Amino acid sequence: MSLLVIGSLGLDTVETPFGTVENAIGGTAVYCSVSASHFTQVNLVGVIGEDFPSTEIAFLRSRGIDLDGLEIKPGKSFSWGGRYGFDLNSRDTLFTHLNVFETFNPRIPEKYRDTPFIFLGNIGPDLQLSVLEQISKPQLVALDTMNYWIERTPAELARVLKRVDVLLVNDSEMRQLSGEHNLLKAARQVRAMGPKIIVVKKGEHGAIMITDGRFFYAPAFPLENVFDPTGAGDTFAGGFMGYLTKCRRIDEAALRQAIIYGSTFASFVVEDFSIGRLRHLREDEIRTRFINFHEMTKFLKPWEE
Amino acid sequence: MSLLVIGSLGLDTVETPFGTVENAIGGTAVYCSVSASHFTQVNLVGVIGEDFPSTEIAFLRSRGIDLDGLEIKPGKSFSWGGRYGFDLNSRDTLFTHLNVFETFNPRIPEKYRDTPFIFLGNIGPDLQLSVLEQISKPQLVALDTMNYWIERTPAELARVLKRVDVLLVNDSEMRQLSGEHNLLKAARQVRAMGPKIIVVKKGEHGAIMITDGRFFYAPAFPLENVFDPTGAGDTFAGGFMGYLTKCRRIDEAALRQAIIYGSTFASFVVEDFSIGRLRHLREDEIRTRFINFHEMTKFLKPWEE
Repeated sequence: MSLLVIGSLGLDTVETPFGTVENAIGGTAVYCSVSASHFTQVNLVGVIGEDFPSTEIAFLRSRGIDLDGLEIKPGKSFSWGGRYGFDLNSRDTLFTHLNVFETFNPRIPEKYRDTPFIFLGNIGPDLQLSVLEQISKPQLVALDTMNYWIERTPAELARVLKRVDVLLVNDSEMRQLSGEHNLLKAARQVRAMGPKIIVVKKGEHGAIMITDGRFFYAPAFPLENVFDPTGAGDTFAGGFMGYLTKCRRIDEAALRQAIIYGSTFASFVVEDFSIGRLRHLREDEIRTRFINFHEMTKFLKPWEE
Repeated sequence: MSLLVIGSLGLDTVETPFGTVENAIGGTAVYCSVSASHFTQVNLVGVIGEDFPSTEIAFLRSRGIDLDGLEIKPGKSFSWGGRYGFDLNSRDTLFTHLNVFETFNPRIPEKYRDTPFIFLGNIGPDLQLSVLEQISKPQLVALDTMNYWIERTPAELARVLKRVDVLLVNDSEMRQLSGEHNLLKAARQVRAMGPKIIVVKKGEHGAIMITDGRFFYAPAFPLENVFDPTGAGDTFAGGFMGYLTKCRRIDEAALRQAIIYGSTFASFVVEDFSIGRLRHLREDEIRTRFINFHEMTKFLKPWEE
C-alpha cells in the first residue's frame, strides 16, 4: 500500500519567542510525507525551485519517499515567513512568496495513478480536483482546506468535497464551511457535502473525529515547551493517513488509532523548528507517546469501580 | 459518608439567545448540592432571604440535603442577572445584588463538624478558611475560586490553599494564580501552593485533571443545543465531589470516574435554565451518558490492532 501526498514544499522563516530560523524546509508535503513515511511508502507530488537544498531532497529520499512527482523548476521555491506571539496560538504572516508554486499544475506520474490512499493538502480546490481526476480508483481520499478557499472558491470546493472521504479542518474552518456554530449541526451539514469522516483539529485543545453519529475525542499532548507550532496540522495529517495506509482498513478502531498517531506526530514536531524533531524520531519514542495518550484518557466504566 | 457544601444560593435572571428566565434558583450551593445528592448525603451551608421560594427549599430537602446549616435572614436573597451572547462562551453580568449574602458569616452546625468531604464554593478565602477551622478532621477538601480573589486577596487565598487537597479552576484562573501560561509549569506552581489535585475546567473543551505528574483529559459532551451554561462549573463540582464521597477512596481510578461524573452532570444542567434538567434526572440517564463518555474516548493500544 502507498500514500499519495500533494501539497506545498518551501523554505520557511519563523520567529518564535524562543528563537528564529531562516529558510528551513517546510510546507504541507514535507511535514506530511516525513511523518507518514514512518508507516508507509509515500508518493510525493509538488514543486520546488533551484534553491531547495539538495541535502533535504536526499533526506526525503532516505525516508523512502518517492520523488518522481516532485518537479524542480527554474526560479525560487515557495517561501513563507511568520512570527508567533508568546502564547503561540496566534501568528502573523510576515511574507508569502509563491515563486514556482504560483504556476503549479500537478501532474501525476503514470506510476502513481493507482495509489490507493490520497492526501490532498491545502491548495486550490481546482488543483485538488485535477489530482483526483488523474487517479484511477482511490480507496480513501482526505482533504485539507482553509478559510481562503472557503470564502473565494466555494463552488470549486463543493465539487471536490463530493469526492472526498475525510475532511481535515480546524474548528473555525468547520464553522465557516457549514455556517453553523454548533459542532453537531456543523458536522451534519459538512457530511451532507460529501466527506463522511470529519477531523476537527483544535490545536492545544486536541482533535475531534466525527463519523456516522459517533464522536471521538483526543487531547493534545501536554508539553512543557512548545517551540514552534508550524506544520503541526500537516504532521497530524501525515501520521493519520500514514497509519491508515499501513492498516489497509478504515474501520472505527483503525481511524481512532490513526487520530492518536496524528496527535503523537504533531506533539513531536512542535518541539523543534521545521522538521528538526522528526529527523531522528525513533519508533520506541512514537510508541511510548502513543501509550501515554492511552494512559491520559482511560477510565473505568461504572461497573468496574 | 457525607459532603459539606458551602456557597451561594440565590435567584438568577438569565437571558440567552433561546429565552429568558427570571428569579430562578441558582448559586454554587444549589447546583453543587443537587448534583452531589445523586451520590451522597449533603450538608448545606449558606444563607437566603425571605424571598427564596419555600417550594425550592422543599425540593432541596426532597433530595436528602440537610438544611440545618442554611440561614434564613430578613431581607432579600443574593440575586444575579446575566446575558449570554450567541456562542454562549462569553456573558455580561447585568447586575449583582449581594443582599443577605453581603454579611454572610458561615457558622457550621455542631452536627456537621465531623463531615469528612468538604467543598468550599467560590466565596472569599477568609470565609473559606473560617469554615475549615470549624471542621474537626476533614478527609478531602476541595476549593473553587475566581480572578476576583486571586487579584484582591492573594495572601488569604494562599493561606487557605495550604489546607486544600483539590483545586477546581478554569484555565485563565489557573494561569493567573500561577503566573505561568504553560499548563505543566502552572500545575507545578499551584501544587507547590498546597492542592495536590488540580482540576482545570475548560468549558466546551472539557476538563483536565493533574495529579502527581499524571494528566487526565475528559472532553465536554457534544450537545446539539446548549440552552444555558449558568452553573455548569458548580454542577461539575457536585458530580465530582458527590461521587468521591460515595466512593470513600481517593485513588487515581476513583478521581477519573469522578471527573467523568462531573462532566456528565455539567452536560445535563446546560440543557435547561436553572436546575430544570436536574429536577427529574434519572439514574439510567446518568449511567448512559457516563458510558457515552467512555465510548467517545476509548481506543486500542498499538498491540491491540
